[in-house]
Amino acid sequence: QGILERLDAGEIVIGDGGFVFALEKRGYVKAGPWTPEATVEHPEAVRQLHREFLRAGSNVLQTFTFYASEDKLENRGNYVAEKISCNKVNEAACDIAREVANEGDALVAGGVSQTPSYLSCKDKTEVKAAFRKQLDVFMKKDVDFLIAEYFEHVEEAVWAVEVLKESGKPVAATMCIGPEGDMHGVSPGQCAVQLVKAGASIVGVNCHFDPETSVETVRLMKEGLQAAKLKAHLMCQPLAFHTPDCGKQGFIDLPEFPFGLEPRIATRWDIQKYARKAYDIGIRFIGGCCGFEPYHIRAIAEELAPERGFLPEASEKHGNWGDNLSMHTKPWVRARARKEYWENLKPASGRPYCPCMSKPDGWGVTKGAKELMQQKEATTEQQLKELFQKKK
Amino acid sequence: QGILERLDAGEIVIGDGGFVFALEKRGYVKAGPWTPEATVEHPEAVRQLHREFLRAGSNVLQTFTFYASEDKLENRGNYVAEKISCNKVNEAACDIAREVANEGDALVAGGVSQTPSYLSCKDKTEVKAAFRKQLDVFMKKDVDFLIAEYFEHVEEAVWAVEVLKESGKPVAATMCIGPEGDMHGVSPGQCAVQLVKAGASIVGVNCHFDPETSVETVRLMKEGLQAAKLKAHLMCQPLAFHTPDCGKQGFIDLPEFPFGLEPRIATRWDIQKYARKAYDIGIRFIGGCCGFEPYHIRAIAEELAPERGFLPEASEKHGNWGDNLSMHTKPWVRARARKEYWENLKPASGRPYCPCMSKPDGWGVTKGAKELMQQKEATTEQQLKELFQKKK
Amino acid sequence: QGILERLDAGEIVIGDGGFVFALEKRGYVKAGPWTPEATVEHPEAVRQLHREFLRAGSNVLQTFTFYASEDKLENRGNYVAEKISCNKVNEAACDIAREVANEGDALVAGGVSQTPSYLSCKDKTEVKAAFRKQLDVFMKKDVDFLIAEYFEHVEEAVWAVEVLKESGKPVAATMCIGPEGDMHGVSPGQCAVQLVKAGASIVGVNCHFDPETSVETVRLMKEGLQAAKLKAHLMCQPLAFHTPDCGKQGFIDLPEFPFGLEPRIATRWDIQKYARKAYDIGIRFIGGCCGFEPYHIRAIAEELAPERGFLPEASEKHGNWGDNLSMHTKPWVRARARKEYWENLKPASGRPYCPCMSKPDGWGVTKGAKELMQQKEATTEQQLKELFQKKK
Amino acid sequence: QGILERLDAGEIVIGDGGFVFALEKRGYVKAGPWTPEATVEHPEAVRQLHREFLRAGSNVLQTFTFYASEDKLENRGNYVAEKISCNKVNEAACDIAREVANEGDALVAGGVSQTPSYLSCKDKTEVKAAFRKQLDVFMKKDVDFLIAEYFEHVEEAVWAVEVLKESGKPVAATMCIGPEGDMHGVSPGQCAVQLVKAGASIVGVNCHFDPETSVETVRLMKEGLQAAKLKAHLMCQPLAFHTPDCGKQGFIDLPEFPFGLEPRIATRWDIQKYARKAYDIGIRFIGGCCGFEPYHIRAIAEELAPERGFLPEASEKHGNWGDNLSMHTKPWVRARARKEYWENLKPASGRPYCPCMSKPDGWGVTKGAKELMQQKEATTEQQLKELFQKKK
Repeated sequence: QGILERLDAGEIVIGDGGFVFALEKRGYVKAGPWTPEATVEHPEAVRQLHREFLRAGSNVLQTFTFYASEDKLENRGNYVAEKISCNKVNEAACDIAREVANEGDALVAGGVSQTPSYLSCKDKTEVKAAFRKQLDVFMKKDVDFLIAEYFEHVEEAVWAVEVLKESGKPVAATMCIGPEGDMHGVSPGQCAVQLVKAGASIVGVNCHFDPETSVETVRLMKEGLQAAKLKAHLMCQPLAFHTPDCGKQGFIDLPEFPFGLEPRIATRWDIQKYARKAYDIGIRFIGGCCGFEPYHIRAIAEELAPERGFLPEASEKHGNWGDNLSMHTKPWVRARARKEYWENLKPASGRPYCPCMSKPDGWGVTKGAKELMQQKEATTEQQLKELFQKKK
Repeated sequence: QGILERLDAGEIVIGDGGFVFALEKRGYVKAGPWTPEATVEHPEAVRQLHREFLRAGSNVLQTFTFYASEDKLENRGNYVAEKISCNKVNEAACDIAREVANEGDALVAGGVSQTPSYLSCKDKTEVKAAFRKQLDVFMKKDVDFLIAEYFEHVEEAVWAVEVLKESGKPVAATMCIGPEGDMHGVSPGQCAVQLVKAGASIVGVNCHFDPETSVETVRLMKEGLQAAKLKAHLMCQPLAFHTPDCGKQGFIDLPEFPFGLEPRIATRWDIQKYARKAYDIGIRFIGGCCGFEPYHIRAIAEELAPERGFLPEASEKHGNWGDNLSMHTKPWVRARARKEYWENLKPASGRPYCPCMSKPDGWGVTKGAKELMQQKEATTEQQLKELFQKKK
Repeated sequence: QGILERLDAGEIVIGDGGFVFALEKRGYVKAGPWTPEATVEHPEAVRQLHREFLRAGSNVLQTFTFYASEDKLENRGNYVAEKISCNKVNEAACDIAREVANEGDALVAGGVSQTPSYLSCKDKTEVKAAFRKQLDVFMKKDVDFLIAEYFEHVEEAVWAVEVLKESGKPVAATMCIGPEGDMHGVSPGQCAVQLVKAGASIVGVNCHFDPETSVETVRLMKEGLQAAKLKAHLMCQPLAFHTPDCGKQGFIDLPEFPFGLEPRIATRWDIQKYARKAYDIGIRFIGGCCGFEPYHIRAIAEELAPERGFLPEASEKHGNWGDNLSMHTKPWVRARARKEYWENLKPASGRPYCPCMSKPDGWGVTKGAKELMQQKEATTEQQLKELFQKKK
Repeated sequence: QGILERLDAGEIVIGDGGFVFALEKRGYVKAGPWTPEATVEHPEAVRQLHREFLRAGSNVLQTFTFYASEDKLENRGNYVAEKISCNKVNEAACDIAREVANEGDALVAGGVSQTPSYLSCKDKTEVKAAFRKQLDVFMKKDVDFLIAEYFEHVEEAVWAVEVLKESGKPVAATMCIGPEGDMHGVSPGQCAVQLVKAGASIVGVNCHFDPETSVETVRLMKEGLQAAKLKAHLMCQPLAFHTPDCGKQGFIDLPEFPFGLEPRIATRWDIQKYARKAYDIGIRFIGGCCGFEPYHIRAIAEELAPERGFLPEASEKHGNWGDNLSMHTKPWVRARARKEYWENLKPASGRPYCPCMSKPDGWGVTKGAKELMQQKEATTEQQLKELFQKKK
């Protein structure tokens, strides 16, 4: 059954977690460029991560094609001696995802994301060409549906949806925005309306904000769609980091990004609460992004097991709300084998010299920069560079 | 070259990270029992983790045989329908470790750890028989050397060393203790002396405490050995969790153990500081335990690259102190591409409703229980159970 | 010169600090009732506190008549054996304030605050009678001007202003509200408009929220007045407690109120920042409420000394931004004798087992209660009691 | 009845709180010099503070003669134009304390503290002369007993006790040290032994550390006396600031000293816990130092009311464990009118951008400086200055 059949039937569809962060920690992705050449260089590592998400309960395996547009790979990915072609990266990503999907009952989704071409003000035709190049691979490899994800500007997201719609396959679209809306100041509700009008059947957010903020943003999208009398399925794939202190640009601007985010990592119980909230407001495609490890995805599947009627395979190695601790040697650890314990725990950081919140850098603080960017004039690399140098 | 040749020559030997925690998050190990049946059930997952550690710089791959003694597997591991024999688990662990070790330049170490037999007061002969059963496999599979690790009582650790020494192979021994010493009150210095006298060539600590506390404990061991005019190489494999607030029993007694430890996870920079401190006090076998992911091991290898003269393979995907961020789109993120930035960052938890430290449960607080345990009479399962029920 | 002459001339007028909190700590006021019978019981303690504020720079001494309406004193203040009459309390308050004001160059302001009569739904005539009774004393004692302060409902504040205006003296009016507005849901801008229309020459907020939140609320009032093309002087007398986590009802609902607020106490530097912000948005009557001790008032006077051209008397015992530390014995303490040090210090709590923020009780959490209260039906004592009992 | 009669009879004697910090906040003492010229300049302010402590339950009023030795006043106190003589300051202090003591049932204690003469290496004769000059005033004014307090070096404290003993009056001696002992490395136990041998009838600690640390230090003194088979009454007058993170020199070295200590201020409940602990280990002279306001002293008197059989006067304005909140308007505030609520509250700081602990400056970190100081050679002003300049 395809993605729309499932969602139309009222099924809960569980997404997967974030590849760039997980594989960075495993040693296969470089922070900064964040490109997916590992599909060619280390397919076994990519395959294993897909398998873990499948086992944890994912119903959708996204091809590891984040930032795999040709312009991005050339711009950022070619720090390695031998250049790997865009096609090769995308094809390998499709092959691996399909191989693992066939081991279970999962769909393969081909994904595109924002491009440097757009940021450096290339025109619509050129930006669309970049998406189309990836789409050609997805069609050749016959993925099950398509996702346009991680867009900061709804204008570019709409262009992506328009390209993906040419395929005839179902299209989902998620933006990496919070309640304040996109970088040009378009509200979440308006973003959702534009994406659905462009042809997306599923809309929502991914990355940049924590689960709570992301669910709230999707709620605003839902309101926007209702006001416009439009219908679409809702989708949410947030960070597994707590970010109550970030500004419009999300976690990128936090001083801890990307190498000091550890104290913000969500527990499995945080994720169970997220899954419940997402479900309660009507989101039915529930997954994760950066920071989501397989056990976080399992937490979604376990929280919603009563609604779905089954547990994921990986739950054979996990007790409900810690009940496996009843086998622990120490009696006081056994006493932790109950739901209220974990539900109410306020976990300590073990870092008494560190604060609880940070002030974001960047757009969060530079009002002038923010205004420039909202006018879009400042978004070329060159202008940003100059802007920043003036700031110093 | 064997482990002792390397250490005798003054080389730095880098250990690997913790398997039970990493594989629990990946979905292959059950928290509570913490047994390694994954070597049989999901060898591809175990193999992939070994590969990641090798790639991150590990010179030693430990067989995934933690809690794989027959008594433990029977006691704890047989929650799965079809029972897997102790021999099968240990043999598979050796095969996988060897296969991956051969892909690089690493040694394979067979490992034994504390037994339920000892805790339930079985006699020396019976406890030693459990170790010998595992040793038989290690000999058959011809591991390069042996490690007796994760012992809370030096008495049992000495028995393990005595058994492992029968093999003629080099033996390392690490206890899961902090500066207060073992559960019977033997100081770290005295523990080290007894282990070396029993035949260990390498001594130190693993698990239970954070890097800072563990380095301090090894320093106390070193002092004990010097006072006794004994020589041995020093080894340290701590947690990758901050635990300034734990008691004698370490992180087990913290209320966050084991499902709420996320805010305590060490950053890569914390680990670089640990590697430097460990090196400075003379430790030359430097690795990690629970919480150590491949990128933490890479941090050790990167910190000590000037001394060793080379970087690990995985550093092709990692810049020195964040210098890869110089390729980031946002200028203020590029400004984070420098050592002083990450060295001085005090990362926020993003959790303003949570505290920084916790009061430990268990031995940490129950003085009566502590005394009983020190007399060892209370350490049978039955007695612990009664004790706890009285407490409630 | 009267209050309006000063403000009209562009002068900065510095208010005083909170009496009930300061005198509670000194042993003369009971938390809970918070009534000012100390004016009769211990005039020397009240006089001393007035003197300290005068010395710290206050240009206005408010009579200590908070909660001194007859209905409140009967309702709450008569826990002491011999009843003290409302008139006696108010008269003594006027006499003490005048005595100290004459020692310097300060004005005396007679103050009224919200009444139990209003909360228990007495009608306008009855509520106004309570204010008029206090006003009679203020007229007899010839105070310089009048302040209606600490009102949660603009309706009652308007009644108070109407009564005070009968006197012909200038009237200031401050509500204890935050950006969400009054308890019936009237916005700060609307509150300001109604108060000015009722005759207040000076409007603003006092108590319930921290300086940052209070300045923002006054800013909203200013916007409301501008939109309505009305003119009034602006006034701000906030808490000296950090309350980023409180809800609509302010600090009353925080779990720390009133006996655990210590970790939230503002430093003198926090107050200097507040004084600057308040000045920058156009507030010219700048003082404090609960938590403000004399040194906090001095901090306002010192921050605005460049604009005013003089320092308060108490600055003879205080260096600018810590420069008196240059006389300290220890060199590293001397190194703290500079502005950037104190401006940038992030003071630690010394409480690693405590969180940084709390979830408010009461209206903050009980949605049903909030709705009831907004309908005003639940605001009688009896209904609140029933409501709360149902909740348990 | 004299101090020794009371203590010998097993009475609990309650001390007073800190004058320099309380009067600094009220505007009469300058931080940095910390000298008590207010006794002459503003006797009404000093008198009022004495009255508040008396009313709160103090049985001992200490003359406000801290840092009132002639060398200190000349060195530090003469920043004011007209110089005030040492004798005048000390005499006024005695007169005020006696006047207030006569209003109740309190003793007057004349106090001396450490001298700049000692720190700049003047000899024993000269240092003793400074103490004798103050003692002459105390004898003329006939104080009830004498306290040598706030000594960092036991050598100087012994000299002070020897001088005070010449008077024939009872002598108490408290050092401002923690468990690590005095600045020359003498342990608390050894300090106590030397002080008792010099003639002190009461020994203990004051200032520099929080209640918990101070009680522990007095416990070590008690052990030292027991080991030496000496007898003395025990006394404790700690800070009302939480200082779990300070080094040997106490709170002086914390970056927050002295103008950012607010978040560390103890609640009344913290002080009740302190009073109980102090009592439990046998301390019978229980008071406070810097940070102790009258309500903190009242907390001691209320906690020990069951043992003493009466409440202080100021308790007429304070309910037991918050029970006066049962009169509050809001039901959820009334719900805080119970002991378990306040006993278990973990008060939030309201400062999410601040840490919980700080790293101490000064001796805490500069090992070289520490060693120099322990040799005493570096303790002249000149040397410290040079030392510090080299450090920069």
